Amino acid sequence: MARLSKLAALLRYYILRATTAAGSGHPSSSLSAVELLTALVFGGIFRYDPDRPQHPNNDRLIFSKGHASPLLYALWVAAGKLTGEELINGYRRFGSPLEGHPSVSFPYTEVATGSLGQGLSIGVGLALNAKYLDRLPYRTYVLLGDSEMAEGSVWEALEIARHYGLDNLVGLVDVNRLGQRGETMFGHNLEAYARRVAAFGWEVFPVDGHSLPEILQALQESLKVKGCPSLILARTVKGKGVSFLEERNGWHGRALNPEECRQALAELGEVDLNLRGEIRLPEDLTPESPPRRPAPPLDYDPKARVATRRAFGNALARLGTQYPELVSLDAEVSNSTMAEIFARAFPERFFEMYLTEQNMVGAALGLGLRGKIPFVSSFAAFLTRAFDQIRMSQYSDPNLKFVGSHAGVSIGWDGPSQMGLEDLAMFRTLRNSVVLYPADAVATERLVEEMLKHRGLMYLRTTREATPILYSPEEKFPLGGLKILRQSERDRLALVTAGITLFEALAAYEALRQEGVFVRVVDLYCLKPVDAANLTRAARETGLVLTVEDHYPEGGLGEAVRSALAGVPVPVYSLAVSQKPKSGSPQELLDFEGISCRAILAKIRELLNLPGGGGEP
Amino acid sequence: MARLSKLAALLRYYILRATTAAGSGHPSSSLSAVELLTALVFGGIFRYDPDRPQHPNNDRLIFSKGHASPLLYALWVAAGKLTGEELINGYRRFGSPLEGHPSVSFPYTEVATGSLGQGLSIGVGLALNAKYLDRLPYRTYVLLGDSEMAEGSVWEALEIARHYGLDNLVGLVDVNRLGQRGETMFGHNLEAYARRVAAFGWEVFPVDGHSLPEILQALQESLKVKGCPSLILARTVKGKGVSFLEERNGWHGRALNPEECRQALAELGEVDLNLRGEIRLPEDLTPESPPRRPAPPLDYDPKARVATRRAFGNALARLGTQYPELVSLDAEVSNSTMAEIFARAFPERFFEMYLTEQNMVGAALGLGLRGKIPFVSSFAAFLTRAFDQIRMSQYSDPNLKFVGSHAGVSIGWDGPSQMGLEDLAMFRTLRNSVVLYPADAVATERLVEEMLKHRGLMYLRTTREATPILYSPEEKFPLGGLKILRQSERDRLALVTAGITLFEALAAYEALRQEGVFVRVVDLYCLKPVDAANLTRAARETGLVLTVEDHYPEGGLGEAVRSALAGVPVPVYSLAVSQKPKSGSPQELLDFEGISCRAILAKIRELLNLPGGGGEP
Repeated sequence: MARLSKLAALLRYYILRATTAAGSGHPSSSLSAVELLTALVFGGIFRYDPDRPQHPNNDRLIFSKGHASPLLYALWVAAGKLTGEELINGYRRFGSPLEGHPSVSFPYTEVATGSLGQGLSIGVGLALNAKYLDRLPYRTYVLLGDSEMAEGSVWEALEIARHYGLDNLVGLVDVNRLGQRGETMFGHNLEAYARRVAAFGWEVFPVDGHSLPEILQALQESLKVKGCPSLILARTVKGKGVSFLEERNGWHGRALNPEECRQALAELGEVDLNLRGEIRLPEDLTPESPPRRPAPPLDYDPKARVATRRAFGNALARLGTQYPELVSLDAEVSNSTMAEIFARAFPERFFEMYLTEQNMVGAALGLGLRGKIPFVSSFAAFLTRAFDQIRMSQYSDPNLKFVGSHAGVSIGWDGPSQMGLEDLAMFRTLRNSVVLYPADAVATERLVEEMLKHRGLMYLRTTREATPILYSPEEKFPLGGLKILRQSERDRLALVTAGITLFEALAAYEALRQEGVFVRVVDLYCLKPVDAANLTRAARETGLVLTVEDHYPEGGLGEAVRSALAGVPVPVYSLAVSQKPKSGSPQELLDFEGISCRAILAKIRELLNLPGGGGEP
Repeated sequence: MARLSKLAALLRYYILRATTAAGSGHPSSSLSAVELLTALVFGGIFRYDPDRPQHPNNDRLIFSKGHASPLLYALWVAAGKLTGEELINGYRRFGSPLEGHPSVSFPYTEVATGSLGQGLSIGVGLALNAKYLDRLPYRTYVLLGDSEMAEGSVWEALEIARHYGLDNLVGLVDVNRLGQRGETMFGHNLEAYARRVAAFGWEVFPVDGHSLPEILQALQESLKVKGCPSLILARTVKGKGVSFLEERNGWHGRALNPEECRQALAELGEVDLNLRGEIRLPEDLTPESPPRRPAPPLDYDPKARVATRRAFGNALARLGTQYPELVSLDAEVSNSTMAEIFARAFPERFFEMYLTEQNMVGAALGLGLRGKIPFVSSFAAFLTRAFDQIRMSQYSDPNLKFVGSHAGVSIGWDGPSQMGLEDLAMFRTLRNSVVLYPADAVATERLVEEMLKHRGLMYLRTTREATPILYSPEEKFPLGGLKILRQSERDRLALVTAGITLFEALAAYEALRQEGVFVRVVDLYCLKPVDAANLTRAARETGLVLTVEDHYPEGGLGEAVRSALAGVPVPVYSLAVSQKPKSGSPQELLDFEGISCRAILAKIRELLNLPGGGGEP
């Protein structure tokens, strides 16, 4: 215990030095959790091979309170994997992996954090993987702040963790009483937290968060808990160890100046800078893995009408044997997204997440961290619920696939609350994301294959209504591609669209062809990365572009095309959802919004000054 | 009680008739809540003047489970404000106000719902208004489904309602056991819900949800509860009253066919179609309202550097007396967004929402429904947490103002988790939204004035760093406008930007001017609606446009400008955040991302083939 106390002092030393050297950061929020992490990591509980951060048997540690990053880095100084100089000179410096909030460029960061309330869900994913997929005895620890306990996403994680009996998951809450701007909702009332978390079916261990023996005992006891997760609820002092920081407001995101730092270090007493902590090594068991077998070929009757959401479900089920890493998560709507087809075929790799979209995304990220390929499905509209989680996931370089069904007004009668009309914009914002919007079942199946083949953050948009089969099974759909479905040398306009409105465009093409007017029809099944070269060619050859999409005008297909054609002096007109959507039949709504065949024809007549058009463009 | 039973049968009749006539909808989820709503609305509890839906003393009723819309409409048939024919012929028909999920085109819809888990937060806003602002005795009732109890947003609402002691708020949970695709997490285990909700400090009343006397008694008792909200937890049967629907899976979003409907109606027995229910009238008290006094004038030292986030806080505080309707909500970061300046000046009109961003948006919507003008502030990045709530709010035609601080990489050392880089894209997608991004304190103050003057859903993006004052206090900033800061007849390019990068653009202008090269500099402080006319003029006069923004490339300023110039054959190049952001100083990061003065100069040299440029564009 004396050694652990000295290690705690060492951590405090580096927390203070690093933040003062950087001139910013959160020393007080790091100091409060020093004993919690010292006990966990160096007290013989945590099992981790520091030379193999990706060892499948390593316990996992998530800093959900990412602003305590100085503590994370100090731990690894104490573990001998980072020098004190590297920390002091690197923390928060441009180009250093020791960023203000944990980033995955530091090898001991489990996952990028910093938007509060997300870590426990990621822990759920790691723990689900251990218990149900890899079947390994590693444990997942999540350090939470008390402020973030207000986030609904934490309660989603608490309930799902209990539902799945994740007794390999342990939360540690650093109840230091003070949030960013003052006292938290419950202050030091540990009982308020304990009552709530216990009601959610967790085993709760209240401790003095600065008593190493109490923390160690709670951690030991948590090892014995069966059937439910554990939460260590630690009463701590913000700024602990530095008299003029302790329990003081106004020291949240603020480093000490050099003189204050000197005083603070003096209060620590003698610190042994050469002391290093020992971490228990993990076992060496092999993860379970289902056998890999080739997938059967595609099989669609070319005359059938098949909704792309159904093709998505079919594809997952068809490819399940070829990709044993493939897992599916859905938020209580698998009979709409059609993830249920996979769930029936591979029940052990399907996770019902109930209505916890935010937690679902976090859990999927956690599964992805352990080598799984998670497909996260819900209504496209409801994925907006998890935008912050989706946004954060990009900073962990994830292999994560999103599928949003019921896109656009063409869902019909249910009305706008259920219509995904901003999903393309949302997923396009993500760095290096791939955004796919297939029109038929064949394209959907092929694109799901591409999503499995390629690593990264990808989004597939599917349609509620059954639509005709357009493509033969031999057709290839590379990421970053497009298909030209109709073209001639007389094309006067390029009609660029995707998904449900492609069929409206094809109908418009037919009507115009009858009149001897030719337009090019482009299926832009991949909105990002966009095939700028072929779009440019189509634009230059026709001299005029019209985009059509079942999405709001901003951030969707139209703007993607315009950005691709930014340097091409060809006008790009757009049709998109233009009126406040309402209930009605799909066709009524496509007409009402000005994105149906009729609207396309009217716009083209106007643009080309054809009879029946509205005059000058 | 016999009369209430007959009213319940009447409601069931119209639920079945309307959904069958429409061929879609959720009869089974409506049938389960019939007694709950009959008892509440016609049992002498609910006070409401049907001829004055906006009466300030009316009790409020939110259908958080919006898919039970047939029940909502049937209630108003039973109340005599809608005919049975109107319901049967109108439900889910194109152009009818009786949409698939409640829409505000129906006058008795309190708020548009349909994305689950949002109603209780809206109720929090209505109840906060009654208790702390209007100081009226009206009560707020929220009907919830059991599936949506999994949503974290519900738990955020539960904790905040308790924190504010909202004893005028009553939730009614229709625990019908079956979600969309099967059993809920807790099935009919009412105790599981009761334990959790009671731990959150609510008074819980478990009842048989088909026993009118039990429900009435619980509602009566909830009237006496002081200091905390109440939840009626009703054990119900999905499809209640129709033998072949009751407790059956597979009947979630499915209407009966005409033959099934005939059978179902037969099971109801005799229904008195002429029966009408009575609703108690409310009192007639006047809402409290602080006196309205003119705001003091602006006062900034033209030589000062003032962060726009601070100017936002100053503006709220300055305008607080002129707009007694102005209220502010912040999620535990008011000392960063600077909403704290208002909070100090008007503590009674500031609501600390802790880290419940989703609930904060719902509560603000609720406050807006009662005539307040809520400003909702957080880090721009963390507003993504509430995208679904923001998205849904647009369908209630709200008067709601969002303010996102810490926009862009220019926040510096804290790193990407704290950087708003997709907020412009998110807020641009909203129908008729206004998106503002001022560069200096004067513009910020004037735009906050505009936000107060004009009704609607608006977003203001603010900057962390202090920036110079650009404008004199006389300058006007109309919505939909822009400012041309530098122009000449020799301009070879229009540099269009806003916010922090405007200063980079001005520095680039100076450097080029030294070389005799002139560019036009445009402050696009309003991204939506965008001033297409003046952008077009600038594009045509210069022949070349370059946009610059501290935001990801998709959906932001660059794409807004391109869409405005879609028909103008002038190339529009863009600089936006191009690398994975990291920690560093603001200037390092602006350089790294290619949006600093240096990057602007390099790009302009390239585009104009100037010495030092990168060659052909």
